[in-house]
Amino acid sequence: MNAAMLRTPLVAAVAVASFTMSGLASAQQSDLEQRLADLEARVAAAEQRAQQAEARAASVEQSTAASGDESLEARLARVEEKADSDEGFAFGAYARSGLLIGDDHKSIPGGPGVTPAGPLGGNVGRLGNEPDTYAEAKLNYRQRYDNGAVADYRMMFADGVTTSNDWTADESNLNVRNVYVEFSELPSFTGAFEDASIWAGKRFDRDNFDIHWMDTDFVFLGGTGAGIYDVQLADSWKANFSLYGRSYSDFPTEESEITDDTDNLTLTANNFFGNWQWMVSGLSAADNDERDIENGSTAADSGAHTMVAYHGDSFFGLSEGNFKAAVMHGQGLGAEVKVVGGNGSLTEDATATRVGLYGTTYLAPKWRIAPAILAEVSEDRLAEGDKYSWATFNTRLANELTANFEMQYEATYQYMDLDQGASGNAAEGSYTKFTVAPTFKPQVGGFWKRPEIRVFASYSDWDEELNDYSADDAFGSEGFTGSQWSFGVQSEIWF
Amino acid sequence: MNAAMLRTPLVAAVAVASFTMSGLASAQQSDLEQRLADLEARVAAAEQRAQQAEARAASVEQSTAASGDESLEARLARVEEKADSDEGFAFGAYARSGLLIGDDHKSIPGGPGVTPAGPLGGNVGRLGNEPDTYAEAKLNYRQRYDNGAVADYRMMFADGVTTSNDWTADESNLNVRNVYVEFSELPSFTGAFEDASIWAGKRFDRDNFDIHWMDTDFVFLGGTGAGIYDVQLADSWKANFSLYGRSYSDFPTEESEITDDTDNLTLTANNFFGNWQWMVSGLSAADNDERDIENGSTAADSGAHTMVAYHGDSFFGLSEGNFKAAVMHGQGLGAEVKVVGGNGSLTEDATATRVGLYGTTYLAPKWRIAPAILAEVSEDRLAEGDKYSWATFNTRLANELTANFEMQYEATYQYMDLDQGASGNAAEGSYTKFTVAPTFKPQVGGFWKRPEIRVFASYSDWDEELNDYSADDAFGSEGFTGSQWSFGVQSEIWF
Amino acid sequence: MNAAMLRTPLVAAVAVASFTMSGLASAQQSDLEQRLADLEARVAAAEQRAQQAEARAASVEQSTAASGDESLEARLARVEEKADSDEGFAFGAYARSGLLIGDDHKSIPGGPGVTPAGPLGGNVGRLGNEPDTYAEAKLNYRQRYDNGAVADYRMMFADGVTTSNDWTADESNLNVRNVYVEFSELPSFTGAFEDASIWAGKRFDRDNFDIHWMDTDFVFLGGTGAGIYDVQLADSWKANFSLYGRSYSDFPTEESEITDDTDNLTLTANNFFGNWQWMVSGLSAADNDERDIENGSTAADSGAHTMVAYHGDSFFGLSEGNFKAAVMHGQGLGAEVKVVGGNGSLTEDATATRVGLYGTTYLAPKWRIAPAILAEVSEDRLAEGDKYSWATFNTRLANELTANFEMQYEATYQYMDLDQGASGNAAEGSYTKFTVAPTFKPQVGGFWKRPEIRVFASYSDWDEELNDYSADDAFGSEGFTGSQWSFGVQSEIWF
Repeated sequence: MNAAMLRTPLVAAVAVASFTMSGLASAQQSDLEQRLADLEARVAAAEQRAQQAEARAASVEQSTAASGDESLEARLARVEEKADSDEGFAFGAYARSGLLIGDDHKSIPGGPGVTPAGPLGGNVGRLGNEPDTYAEAKLNYRQRYDNGAVADYRMMFADGVTTSNDWTADESNLNVRNVYVEFSELPSFTGAFEDASIWAGKRFDRDNFDIHWMDTDFVFLGGTGAGIYDVQLADSWKANFSLYGRSYSDFPTEESEITDDTDNLTLTANNFFGNWQWMVSGLSAADNDERDIENGSTAADSGAHTMVAYHGDSFFGLSEGNFKAAVMHGQGLGAEVKVVGGNGSLTEDATATRVGLYGTTYLAPKWRIAPAILAEVSEDRLAEGDKYSWATFNTRLANELTANFEMQYEATYQYMDLDQGASGNAAEGSYTKFTVAPTFKPQVGGFWKRPEIRVFASYSDWDEELNDYSADDAFGSEGFTGSQWSFGVQSEIWF
Repeated sequence: MNAAMLRTPLVAAVAVASFTMSGLASAQQSDLEQRLADLEARVAAAEQRAQQAEARAASVEQSTAASGDESLEARLARVEEKADSDEGFAFGAYARSGLLIGDDHKSIPGGPGVTPAGPLGGNVGRLGNEPDTYAEAKLNYRQRYDNGAVADYRMMFADGVTTSNDWTADESNLNVRNVYVEFSELPSFTGAFEDASIWAGKRFDRDNFDIHWMDTDFVFLGGTGAGIYDVQLADSWKANFSLYGRSYSDFPTEESEITDDTDNLTLTANNFFGNWQWMVSGLSAADNDERDIENGSTAADSGAHTMVAYHGDSFFGLSEGNFKAAVMHGQGLGAEVKVVGGNGSLTEDATATRVGLYGTTYLAPKWRIAPAILAEVSEDRLAEGDKYSWATFNTRLANELTANFEMQYEATYQYMDLDQGASGNAAEGSYTKFTVAPTFKPQVGGFWKRPEIRVFASYSDWDEELNDYSADDAFGSEGFTGSQWSFGVQSEIWF
Repeated sequence: MNAAMLRTPLVAAVAVASFTMSGLASAQQSDLEQRLADLEARVAAAEQRAQQAEARAASVEQSTAASGDESLEARLARVEEKADSDEGFAFGAYARSGLLIGDDHKSIPGGPGVTPAGPLGGNVGRLGNEPDTYAEAKLNYRQRYDNGAVADYRMMFADGVTTSNDWTADESNLNVRNVYVEFSELPSFTGAFEDASIWAGKRFDRDNFDIHWMDTDFVFLGGTGAGIYDVQLADSWKANFSLYGRSYSDFPTEESEITDDTDNLTLTANNFFGNWQWMVSGLSAADNDERDIENGSTAADSGAHTMVAYHGDSFFGLSEGNFKAAVMHGQGLGAEVKVVGGNGSLTEDATATRVGLYGTTYLAPKWRIAPAILAEVSEDRLAEGDKYSWATFNTRLANELTANFEMQYEATYQYMDLDQGASGNAAEGSYTKFTVAPTFKPQVGGFWKRPEIRVFASYSDWDEELNDYSADDAFGSEGFTGSQWSFGVQSEIWF
């Protein structure tokens, strides 16, 4: 074995070893390379993906953030503001329309003021007792100014007819009952006037409230004038002040053949202390004492009126619901205690005291009840020495039977003891009415939910003596002397 | 060569081999490292990019998905719902207003009911024949409830005057023609009532339909009452049921100097079977037979009315378009076959049969035609033994010339043979009118497209005998005795 | 040392070398592997991140780009179009309502036409001088068609009463003053008619303009008819052409006990050249010369009327503001130079010339002033040989005190020299009125800003001779003979 001989296998061994080692390294290497290559491919893909995702995000960002020069968000906010705005036009309505038919298949007299006490404000229950189509269309318009001030314009058309025909041009009573402007949130109003609003024009006062089931306000303050609402006189004392004019037109005077006109001006302070309300009004109608009321008494040319009311958050403290109770007293021109200033024929000594009260609650899950009382005594009203007393008790009951249907019931009783005053005979007696009214509504659930479509049957009766009281009222007219059945259908809506 | 000698080159060889191999590994290694480092950099960049993309996506997500607590999508959906809502107020109108001037440059009598047959419902073509400003303003309000129910309130003011002055307080006929509430989609209505809707109040019936070119309904059912629409009595049978009241006021009775009132009550079933309609009504007006119709005949206190109609989807099967055909028959109070219950002066034996028909189609691409026929025979109508016959043939032709302009033509012919009945002389004769009316409209394209502004010239003529028929109609009044040219302008709109 | 001996260490060396090299490679290898593994993990994370980012971007993209088949952007654009649309219903109004009370606490006569010159158009300042509730409700409806054409429907209800009561059915003057349709942007109108619009119906002309503080138009063109606006006759010449009808009803004729009717037709060209306006009208009322005007003169059956006016962009070139000046002249029926065609009692020789002028400007930052003059001379007006002259000077001054309050002042002076004409005595004299009116408004800042709520005190006086002029006007009626104080409140709004 020479060295070369020796070297050869050695070199071979080294070569083998080298080869082996290089093979080893190369195997590991190619695995790494493979992994690297895989990774590179994945990174390239991930890069592309990230780039695409970024591009997409950027594109979406651009489309939401700025199409043109306004972002989607800003554009949407502008549209939302428009859509949610309380500015501009708003439509409101009250309406009732239907048939009131007697058992002779002819129209029958009706209305909450159907009894002899009606002209004195002695309303009875209205359910199944209304013969008219009465509608109010309210066109309102609100403007909000850069300085934050708000102006509300309110206009109301009203019409009431008893004909069932569609074209009623001859019978139309269509007229404009409200036209006024009210300003609120005036920046220059501060202190006690911070939350105050002012108004002028022709209107129903904002704070009138009613006994719905007898269709009568507790107090109806309305006419043409101006006023201010919500003056904060103390922490728990807010007050309204207003001047309302009403017109007394073409009344007879003692100088024969001369009629005269005057205006009643009513200045009112309406105070609110928590649930309590105290309203006080002074009335003046210059020269109204020259009116000839045809019985020797002197007509009033001034008057006073006051009301204390409580607005309850529960059903007389007994259960959930609400109630309202008020006592009103008036003298002279104030002795028309509901429509303040509405009657110019009262004597200078006239006095009237009225109490009103109602409440609503659920007796049981599907049974609602609403009892109400309204009563008045007035003296020296239309002539010195006269006296008129009446009291109405009314209860509306409703039983919600399905999502869209309820049975309504109403019982009303009125007692009256009426002096003859300026018009005819005295009379004493009582009136009762009972009504059943299957009623459809889009969604049942309370006394204030309208619209309603009702079918009804009513039975009413009264003392015969009441038929002779006045030739001007319905009682005693042909076929309407007592023991009356009436039937009908009616819709009622407000919004 | 000793072993050391031998070993040295071997070791060197091994070292070389080692070195070579290590060199080889190291070269491969550094390449890998480079690639790894590159990759690491790329991964870091990709990571950052992915992070940025994610951040951007998240930011956009947040801006679209939640600004405040509501996503853009949700906010937009809410605004869309408001914008697309059919709830709330909607305004509708019908109006026509213009001048109708004779060749003496003064107003000329006109109207589709201008002929002696007019009071009997014998209308003639209206184009170039209308002297009035008549407008209906419809104030509608829709409410949709949580339970899915829908309430629609509809109120319509209407006025019609013939004066051209702007201030028309003295001539005003403004009145409230519609006030009603309709409920649909009531959840508690199921089975045959699933698609039914109910209504109450004062309205025109939903399913009245008219011959527009003579301004007359086939049947006009309207008044105050209540009803139900779309009761599904069988697969192909839908029916409406309604009770409509109308008032007969202050009519003379045989007891001299006493007038009386009553109500007509119409109970109607209106049935639809595919294209066919069958309407049947019973009428009752208690004590209307006490009315003095001043000719010895007895006034009807009841009646019956029926109509069979076909609503065609083509122009009489001949071409595209539509047609409607109907025959009506009535007895007693039903003998006023159009305005059901609208005439309380009919005798108890009165009968009337009317046929009506019209169609519309395109004769050629720009030429539309609408022929119409209306004819009636009635007997014992206003007095026993009387007989009234009339027939009107009318054709409206229109040639669309530009996007905004078309020529309209109308020819109308009416034959009438009228007994004297309660009012004056008998008469027989015919009336013809031909009108050319260049007409502007925002977009031409059909008979029902309004508004239109038209200029027109009409020539009308009639038999002289018709001038003496009645002192109450226009025929025979000063300067209106035949061979009349009239000219005018008029706008008409509905929406 | 044998070869095996030799070989062993060599192999060992080779093995060592191999091992060493392999160890070296393996150390490098494991570092690389570690880095690779780290990288793989990072890539996986980055991939996931990119995927998530992409998914998020895609999701946002989808939510903004296509929920359903519409993108947020497209949906928003659709809602924006709806929200910003000028199509559909729009409500407009003018209204004033308040009290005007004398120092006897009763309503006092008033109105801008209160003086004897009033019936001739001789208005005086209105501030603190208006006794009525007057309201206009405008129901407008705009439709835009696929071809670009626009149709505007306009309807206006108006009512004016002086009673202060809310229910005014008996006094109601509610009527429909405007009912018309106007088309604009008609694609088939080109050339001179490119910007023209056409209208027909009952309306106030678009281009009437007024002296607000005296409540009088310069020219009031109105009635029922048709016309075209904005015909471009030359580069600086635009013109309107119209035909307006007005009705003369039930006037006496010389044949006793027969009344007659006719129509006045007014054809007008109203030309605009920059700030200048030239209006020219021809009037015709067939047979109006048969009217008995009860003084031997012959009534006009035709007339002519013209006006040249300048609409200034500054306060008479002196300061910022505006002014308008016009001179009108009319003959025959055109001698009622304001209400064109509005008076059928004018003689055939009647002539009248009127000048009117007003301007508004700021005197100082918070002081606005608006002087106005209106004067007329007419001859042979109501009878041959008569002559009526009057001139009114009026200035309204306002001092803006807070954001919501300003003091307004008005002084008015009218001189009149009136022939007896058809009605009673001649009279010459003057009338003055001065008014202070503290005024609330949502935002002060100009004469045209409404609504306003004002309180006011006015003092008016006039020559005693004016009291005897006519029994039909207020002057000389009980308690209204001069030196009058009046007080009141009023709201006024327009939009």
